[in-house]
Order: sequence, then C-alpha cells, then structure tokens
Amino acid sequence: MGSLEVERETTGWAARDPSGVLSPYTYTLRKTGPEDVYIKVTCCGICHTDLHQIKNDLGKSNYPMVPGHEVVGEVVEVGSSVTKFKAGDVVGVGLMVGCCRNCNACKSDIEQYCNKKIWSYNDVYTDGKSTQGGFARAMVIDQKFVVKIPEGMAPEQAAPLLCAGLTVYSPLNHFGLKKSGLRAGILGLGGVGHMGVKMAKAMGHHVTVISSSDKKREEAMDHLGAHEYLVSSDAIKMQEAADSLDYIIDTIPVFHPLEPYLSLLKLDGKLVLMGVINQPLQFLSPVVMLGRKTITGSLIGSMKEMEEMFEFWSERNLTSMIEVVKMEYVNKAIERLEKNDVRYRFVVDVIGSKLDQE
Amino acid sequence: MGSLEVERETTGWAARDPSGVLSPYTYTLRKTGPEDVYIKVTCCGICHTDLHQIKNDLGKSNYPMVPGHEVVGEVVEVGSSVTKFKAGDVVGVGLMVGCCRNCNACKSDIEQYCNKKIWSYNDVYTDGKSTQGGFARAMVIDQKFVVKIPEGMAPEQAAPLLCAGLTVYSPLNHFGLKKSGLRAGILGLGGVGHMGVKMAKAMGHHVTVISSSDKKREEAMDHLGAHEYLVSSDAIKMQEAADSLDYIIDTIPVFHPLEPYLSLLKLDGKLVLMGVINQPLQFLSPVVMLGRKTITGSLIGSMKEMEEMFEFWSERNLTSMIEVVKMEYVNKAIERLEKNDVRYRFVVDVIGSKLDQE
Repeated sequence: MGSLEVERETTGWAARDPSGVLSPYTYTLRKTGPEDVYIKVTCCGICHTDLHQIKNDLGKSNYPMVPGHEVVGEVVEVGSSVTKFKAGDVVGVGLMVGCCRNCNACKSDIEQYCNKKIWSYNDVYTDGKSTQGGFARAMVIDQKFVVKIPEGMAPEQAAPLLCAGLTVYSPLNHFGLKKSGLRAGILGLGGVGHMGVKMAKAMGHHVTVISSSDKKREEAMDHLGAHEYLVSSDAIKMQEAADSLDYIIDTIPVFHPLEPYLSLLKLDGKLVLMGVINQPLQFLSPVVMLGRKTITGSLIGSMKEMEEMFEFWSERNLTSMIEVVKMEYVNKAIERLEKNDVRYRFVVDVIGSKLDQE
Repeated sequence: MGSLEVERETTGWAARDPSGVLSPYTYTLRKTGPEDVYIKVTCCGICHTDLHQIKNDLGKSNYPMVPGHEVVGEVVEVGSSVTKFKAGDVVGVGLMVGCCRNCNACKSDIEQYCNKKIWSYNDVYTDGKSTQGGFARAMVIDQKFVVKIPEGMAPEQAAPLLCAGLTVYSPLNHFGLKKSGLRAGILGLGGVGHMGVKMAKAMGHHVTVISSSDKKREEAMDHLGAHEYLVSSDAIKMQEAADSLDYIIDTIPVFHPLEPYLSLLKLDGKLVLMGVINQPLQFLSPVVMLGRKTITGSLIGSMKEMEEMFEFWSERNLTSMIEVVKMEYVNKAIERLEKNDVRYRFVVDVIGSKLDQE
C-alpha cells in the first residue's frame, strides 16, 4: 500500500451557497493515516438534514459543502493500525467521523453525545481541513467511524440505515424498548418514520401510525404493514386509543402540540422526540405526572449500536423502501424531498454516476 | 372487640365552603370492616394540596371537607382479617385509602396510578360515603393503606414523610436515582423541596438547591446542609453549572421556563416534575435530544415504597424541620402556609388539641 502517503484528489457534488444547488467540485483528501480507511463510495442516501445544511437553515453552513452521511462504499486501502477492515470490504459511514475519546460519553461508548464530535461534513477535522460527505467518489475515515455492512446486504439497502435506521434503533435500545409485544406509535411518516415502522415491526411490536390526515393510510397499512392508523384530528378514535401505547417515536420536524400524543401513552410510556424544532414545545405537567410519562429525545446512535442494528436487520432480511437516483438527478431529488415527494428515501447511485459533469 | 359492628361519631375540623376556614364538624365513621383498621389520630401534617382542596382551587371540592393526609395515629381496633396491625401500633395514613386492585397499576404494586384510586378525603368511598381526612379524632382505613411507623420515630416526625417524603422518595426509587455519588438539584424549597434536600443527602448525593433569589441561601446551606446554592438568575453561575446534575426534583408549583434547568442536567439527566401546573410548560427539543435528557413526573408513591422509605429514614435516624401547632391554630397556619411562611412543614398536634370547640 505505497499510496498511504499520498493526498489524493477526489470529486464530489457540493453546494456553493444557500441556494443549495449541488454541482461538481474537486478537492483533496488527506493521506490515509495509520487509523484511516480509504473508501470508494458506492452509494449515499439523502436525509432531511442534508437539505437543512446545504440551504444554511441552521445558520452554520460553510461552502463549498459536499453533503451525504449515509455512505456505503468499498475499502480501497487501510492504514497501518487498521485491523477491523481490509481492501474489498463493503462498509458504511454515518453522521460522525470523529470524537474526543476522553469524555464520559466517549468512554461509555455513546460517542454521539461527545461535545467534540466531528460531523461527516460541514465540520473541521483534527487536521484543520473541512470534512466533506458522501456525495463524492471517495472518503478517508477513521476506522472507529466505519461499520462493516453485513454480507449479502445490498449497498443501497444499507445506506438509509446509517442515519435514519440508527436514529430509530438507538432510543429503542437505550430506553429498554426492544422487547417484543410492545405497542408502538410512529408519529410522522417520512424517512425516519418509515424506518420506525419497519424497525418496530421487526421487534415484534404492534405498530400504530399516527398522522394528521387520512392521506397516508394506504401506504402505512398496505405498503409498510402498520397494524393501525390513527388520524390525530379524529377525537373519538384518539380517545379510544388513550393509554394504549408503550412508546411513540415522534418524527415531526415542526412545532406541534404534545398533549394529544402524551394522552395516547400508557403508564410509564415514553415520547421520544426526533425532530430538531426551534420553537418551544408545550405540555401540561399533570398529564406527565399522573401517568409517570416521559418526554425524551435521542440523537443518532453509537457505533456500537450501529453494529448491533446491522446484525439485527440482516438476520431478519429486512429491506426499506427507497428510490435510487443518479447524481445528475440529485438537485431534482432534493427539491422533491423538500415537498416530501419520496417513498421513503432517495439513495444516490454514486458509483454509477458521472461525477465530473452536470 | 365487640365494637366492630358500631358506627362511631367522631369530630374533625372541616371546611364548609371555598373560604377554606376550618371549624369543628361531627360525623360518623363506618363500622370497622374485616379489612379495616380503626385509628385514633395523634398528629397530621399540613400540605399545600390541603390548601388547594379546602379553597376549591381545582374546582372539585365537596363540603363539609375534613382535610389532612399526613396522618399518624394509634391503632385502637382491627377487623377480623387484619394481620399486619394490632391495637397499640403507631401507624400512618397518606393520600390514598382505596384502589381497584385489578388494573395493571394495582397488580404491579404501583396503586398510586390506579384510575380508580380513592383519596383520603374529598372523595367517595366504596360504601358511597364521603372520605374525610386526618384533622380529626379518628379514622377507619383499609389495612392496605396503613403503614407501620418504625419504633422510636416521633409521630410528628413521621407525619411529613407520608406525603412530602414519599413524593420525593418514589421517583428516586423508580428512576434508578438511589445510588450514592449522584449530583442532585432541588428546585424550590417548600415542604417537598426541603424533604428533597434531606432525602437526596441521605442517599449520599451532592445537593444543589436552585432558587430564583438569594433569600434562602442560609437556610439551604446552614440549616438543611445543602452542598451548593444556585440562583437561577445568575447567568454566569448557571453557565458554570451546565451539564453537572444527574437529576433535578422540580417542586415549583407555578409556571416556569424549563430551559435553564434542562441545561444544568448531564447527559441522560432527568428533570422530575412535582408541581401540578395548569399552564403549559415549554422546552426546546434540541436541548432534550442533544443530551438524551428526560422530562418526567411522578405522583406520590406506592405503599410498598412507603414501607421502604420509612425503613430508610429510620435506619439513618433522620428528621425533618417542622413546626408543631394545635388545631386551634390551624386556620392561622394555613394562612401562613399560603405565604410560604413555614420552615418547612406544619404538623397539627391533634391528640393534644381540643377538637370540639374553636
């Protein structure tokens, strides 16, 4: 592997300004250090977070920015201290590429809560250079943040698990909600919600999809196999469903009242928030106290949970619903994602796309 | 015990209307049934809830109403099926005197969450009669809701444990917060907050009292032995204390922003609400998600936890800070309680008071 000392050029598709339009961009990857894995990207999912980042919705975007944090690729070369991976392995990279390794979170294998975590893109790596994501030909990633994709799993199927899947798996794991027989509520049916239905069903839970309208009933019941569908504006059905759920995964990314959903929870039930919402959410203290209910939230998941999740998913031969597109289509795909016009995740076929031209 | 079949008259002090003024009231106690314990009241604590009830603050008060749910007394006679108690035992009665015994909560020994629970007063018992509380000469209570007071514990010291103590003990027990070495925050220093400081200290926790002003610093540090005192309006100190607490017991009974307190919690920290507040509380979802923090609440505690708590308290020879008053003073005491002018709990010396005259 004489190429370890080489800084290599690669091409990705980058946003140049808050318009968020992606176009080809050539940049340099760091040398493959002792702990690094050099990966040729196969495919990469598009997540709602990508959309916020490329458009500077959070006010912290730096350009040029190559998004993409549901990256599946093939290992081309590994650093001298890398033992977990070898050339030819199919691997994944998610939302994180670095952490401090010394804080309580890092030492407890929940490095996603490290205050010095480094994001896969729109962040600064330990060498002072910008991190760039998976809408690119290649990446160099510290082995700690690389996960092996189980044999037999299609790369485009693995991609959405790296963020959406992990985001749902982690709280179920942490809050003791993996045991079968539980009654689950999934609030919102986008990329994460769809994964929530799949994951909860795989765990043997009775799954109720809760939505503001009747529009997604067929999808939820027939395509995703949910057990029940509840329209939150139907006061009678909501009343009938009171005190019936062990947990709710709340994927709604905008302000919404919590009262109606807290009422659906059983004694000791948990409402797990997944939407970063900048407007304060509200609830009444007696609703929480009288049923010892919990409002909590969770942020992606750990690398340990990532490994467990892939094993879980692979053992059950599960799939998610995706739409594979070429990079040439990525701007159109982002437009459609903004309108929720995707069932349920776009995955960009990076290796099958021409990256050098629009 | 030939008196088992007798309905007996007793005298208590009752509110007659929402003015909440208490005065002597004579009523009949039910016969001591097979499962019942007939108790002569020794003393009874005054809780903030009593104040709300006698003044109809919750809109559900029925008069005449004898309040009091931190009742310590001596067993005079027991029903034929009662094995746990005998005449002469010193016992306590808290906020509950009945439950359905068939629901999940009842079967799981957390009968405080039974939807058919019966309150010690201002409620209707299974015989159709009003329940009346502990500001009275005597009570007849189902043995399930009677707890033995440990030998050597003074009745007036036992009283505040029956509601305030249990209310704090139960969430620490349930949410895995009993282990030593934790860092506790106690928000608000009234009857429950003072008990929170005592209880957390007894568990070997490092206790920070959080208050809106500097007024209670001396009390918190010197009288109650808190380790730290934090004024919530002191932005610098609040910032220094960020991410430092494992849990906060929030006893504030009126609207307050949750953000500043959530920020004090460590990763996986818990904010436990104890105040029944009718105005919605607010928080930002990222604050919860980024630290996997939990907002929850808890309602009194179970009889099982009551027994555990008394054992815990008694083993450590703990005391709480009380002001013992006669029944003749009760209306004045209630007035003072309303102004938070008590350090920290009034206990009415019932047996030493003349109940028949004002």
